[in-house]
Amino acid sequence: MAKYTIGLDYGTNSVRAILVNVADGREIASAAWTYAHGKEGILLSGDPNLARQHPADYLKGAETTIKRALAAAKRSVKTFKPDHVIGLGVDTTGSTPIPVDRKGQPLAMDPRFAKDLDAMAWLWKDHTSFAEAEEITDLARKMRPQYLAKCGGVYSSEWFFSKILHCLRTNPKVFSAAYTWVEAADWIPAVLSGTEAPEDLKICVCAAGHKAMFNADWGGYPDEKFLARLDPKLGGLHVRLKTRAQTIDTSVGELSKAWASKTGLPAGIPVATGVFDAHAGAVGSGIEPGTLVKILGTSTCDMMIVPAGQPLADIPGLCGIVKGSVVPGFIGLEAGQSAVGDIFNWYVDVIRPGGAKSGSHAALTKEADKLAPGASGLLALDWNHGNRTVLVDPRLSGLLVGQSLHTTPAEVYRALVEATAFGALTIINRLEQYHVKVERIVTGGGIAEKNPMVMQIYADVTNRPMMLSRSSQTCALGAAVAAAVCAGAHESIPAAQKAMTGLKTKVYQPNPPAVAVYKKLYVLYKQLHDAFGTTAWKGSCHNVMKDLLDLRAQARGS
Amino acid sequence: MAKYTIGLDYGTNSVRAILVNVADGREIASAAWTYAHGKEGILLSGDPNLARQHPADYLKGAETTIKRALAAAKRSVKTFKPDHVIGLGVDTTGSTPIPVDRKGQPLAMDPRFAKDLDAMAWLWKDHTSFAEAEEITDLARKMRPQYLAKCGGVYSSEWFFSKILHCLRTNPKVFSAAYTWVEAADWIPAVLSGTEAPEDLKICVCAAGHKAMFNADWGGYPDEKFLARLDPKLGGLHVRLKTRAQTIDTSVGELSKAWASKTGLPAGIPVATGVFDAHAGAVGSGIEPGTLVKILGTSTCDMMIVPAGQPLADIPGLCGIVKGSVVPGFIGLEAGQSAVGDIFNWYVDVIRPGGAKSGSHAALTKEADKLAPGASGLLALDWNHGNRTVLVDPRLSGLLVGQSLHTTPAEVYRALVEATAFGALTIINRLEQYHVKVERIVTGGGIAEKNPMVMQIYADVTNRPMMLSRSSQTCALGAAVAAAVCAGAHESIPAAQKAMTGLKTKVYQPNPPAVAVYKKLYVLYKQLHDAFGTTAWKGSCHNVMKDLLDLRAQARGS
Repeated sequence: MAKYTIGLDYGTNSVRAILVNVADGREIASAAWTYAHGKEGILLSGDPNLARQHPADYLKGAETTIKRALAAAKRSVKTFKPDHVIGLGVDTTGSTPIPVDRKGQPLAMDPRFAKDLDAMAWLWKDHTSFAEAEEITDLARKMRPQYLAKCGGVYSSEWFFSKILHCLRTNPKVFSAAYTWVEAADWIPAVLSGTEAPEDLKICVCAAGHKAMFNADWGGYPDEKFLARLDPKLGGLHVRLKTRAQTIDTSVGELSKAWASKTGLPAGIPVATGVFDAHAGAVGSGIEPGTLVKILGTSTCDMMIVPAGQPLADIPGLCGIVKGSVVPGFIGLEAGQSAVGDIFNWYVDVIRPGGAKSGSHAALTKEADKLAPGASGLLALDWNHGNRTVLVDPRLSGLLVGQSLHTTPAEVYRALVEATAFGALTIINRLEQYHVKVERIVTGGGIAEKNPMVMQIYADVTNRPMMLSRSSQTCALGAAVAAAVCAGAHESIPAAQKAMTGLKTKVYQPNPPAVAVYKKLYVLYKQLHDAFGTTAWKGSCHNVMKDLLDLRAQARGS
Repeated sequence: MAKYTIGLDYGTNSVRAILVNVADGREIASAAWTYAHGKEGILLSGDPNLARQHPADYLKGAETTIKRALAAAKRSVKTFKPDHVIGLGVDTTGSTPIPVDRKGQPLAMDPRFAKDLDAMAWLWKDHTSFAEAEEITDLARKMRPQYLAKCGGVYSSEWFFSKILHCLRTNPKVFSAAYTWVEAADWIPAVLSGTEAPEDLKICVCAAGHKAMFNADWGGYPDEKFLARLDPKLGGLHVRLKTRAQTIDTSVGELSKAWASKTGLPAGIPVATGVFDAHAGAVGSGIEPGTLVKILGTSTCDMMIVPAGQPLADIPGLCGIVKGSVVPGFIGLEAGQSAVGDIFNWYVDVIRPGGAKSGSHAALTKEADKLAPGASGLLALDWNHGNRTVLVDPRLSGLLVGQSLHTTPAEVYRALVEATAFGALTIINRLEQYHVKVERIVTGGGIAEKNPMVMQIYADVTNRPMMLSRSSQTCALGAAVAAAVCAGAHESIPAAQKAMTGLKTKVYQPNPPAVAVYKKLYVLYKQLHDAFGTTAWKGSCHNVMKDLLDLRAQARGS
């Protein structure tokens, strides 16, 4: 009798449930639902920095997608019955903290706060807390530098404490009404297992470690004295925060009878500890030491794991170094690029080059694919939305150099793709500089599947094979993998990955002549990267345009 | 009885004759003719560097346009008769040397060479001689540095000796058949006055001084020893080159009977010494000390004059410092930007931003005009076609920095316009650094008349009033001014300019708040200019993106 687990993947605009065979990872059914509140699931205001979600959507989304997925499974596998489902895992965006009351109920569900945006879930991409993020970074630099060493040296406005502190400062009514704050990644599994009361709540090491400076080495979250120095009221929260955090091979509890009856799933099956989407995606992509999993979308999330026993320095610029955050027994490393697909989309949708007909991604790719590396004479920096890793600096911008009077739209498009690949290589080089070897890259998602040119450029620029995850829902699959381990179908996450995840057969291998050209172009990229991105660099850029012209002449054979 | 002179203006694609009243500069008639040979008057080959013209077009063009202009004059002024025309002036492109035989006949007209492109006129923009230009520069640096001091430190592939040396090296048959080489600016007035035989020929100081290292201080053209070191055969040419050069207030002779009968003009009227088009344009724009005349087109030519008695250092980077080249009694200074309108055209015609409808110059200008200085956060370098002044370096390229994910086509368009204005200011600053004061800028041509936004940005960036020439044919008008002086209607070029040239009433005044913002942006432009354009600069560019973001925030009031 086949056994299945459910992976529930909460994205920015919608939630998806997939049903996966724990023996071989086959996805037999899938169902998605777009959140009901706000614009494509996001509550907005006049402030462009604000982005919230209604927690009620998380519950409605679980019910809707699980029921639909079960119905779809019955259609695709004749013998399927809901009691073949042995576990459930959840991944979400993050850091997405929710203010909750003494019972773990979101304030958003209290009629008094029904219309207060600050009582909602503060979505990962909410940037209202930029001033508080700076304040936290400044204080940590002086008082607790060790906190920053694990998150790249800068605390972000997207993260847990920045958001809570901003609420405290700007909406004390909501802050006072909140008993504590819970990440969406922790709250949803808790509700499904009836453990949402703060005293019963279990939290995941992934959210706490990467976004809230949680580390067993210093006893969990930042200490009360540190939080109190930011604000005495924030210090007062410390006693209500958890002191232990779990890995995804552990459950937070069993599916409650209430949720069993709502969804049609058997009551009592384990609900896995929650996890962030990118981390679940890494698990679903079969992450292991030596493999960098790149979640390639509008931005990227780059994940690596290192055996926990192996000595590892604090790597400057990485947005997270957390034991057990991806695979238990391994240190999880998180890096990322602030904009990748977003840069290509900006060029196609906002600049709209090529007149009426030739400006689509497909048309530009077709032309760009004919160009030899170096032949355009162009070089770009991929910082239109700042730089997450390794510079950790949002106050950067795009740059394009080498334009002539003949530079074409497709040449610019290719230069933008190459720039993001150079950005990817910069992350890889930083990892290897600290002895984390990157032997291959596994990626997935729309760009990777739709655009072979992008994949080949990444292979040539990074000089590493580019591989594709077999699943196109790696995040949900990762959550299902976690559930399979919690349910005892596999003895460990790596064992479950071996059975349930895999790669497509197509591998993009580096092409040596292109690798050689990109090696030279990367020297120039790195020069501009350091010239515009660091204070340490001092020099001249006089060679840049001339070197690009030389490379252009060589590439064109003239 | 009103008196008139004719200005004959030989452009790149066509020739134009205008008939001008010498008392007030009124243009009573005009006629243009596109050259018959080649593509829009230019003979091309498989080599993109090659651009030639057929000298027969110059003669056919004179006959056609003069006859048509006389006919038009009779229609516009009832009392007009051809014998009211008292003189004729000629301006041409240059350096455009023509190989001629012992009688001053172009080899192109010899049936033996009728199909040999090297026997034609070598048009100013012919770049086949780039290797020879480098050779001449290198030798002059070692042997005669004084030659280069008057032409910006680099001898160009567009100039007289580069072209002759290239012909010698690549087509010895043509070189041997040529008795000597004559600039189009000298050859056309000579033919009209029957003085084309090499022993009778008069040459203009403008072409010789700016493009052929002619200077009275060293006895005219470069000495025989120098030319012979390049090639003994080039040395052999020296004895057949002229030793004196004339200014435009002097005639080269009188209109021959043959040309009088061909055109209908009275025989015996003076034919003024020839002049390059930009120099004639400066005269026709009323150039005087303190006024920079900017001929604003696909590229720019920037002209200034300084009283000959005033001490003047060699100004590094200027493409010419020649006594009497524009107005007799003054030192003529020539600078320029390699691409201005060409950059805007590249963006509109090649990049074609804005999808189907919104990518025209007019549409982009309309949007760009609404933007406040600094509000885009963008900064560009105007080097898509290299930099003529002050860097004298064709091996440079365009640069754009400050792009976000929201940067619009109109923001980029405005940044490109601003970049050319910053380039213009860099020339002005170099002049003032050497005590040549630039109080106002007079310009003309299509961009200046059609695009008030460009004019206002130039006024704000340069912090100087931008004025428009009254005539839209300033080059032809300048030639007519020269003819009026040769005919005795005015006693000097300045007196004739006072009577015959003028400005439009519309003046673009600098707007102080915009000036203040552009002053800050120019600091960043100059930083990138020096960082990418000079070997001397050493530093960091870390401030650039951040300063642009600060200026953007200030401009947007956020």
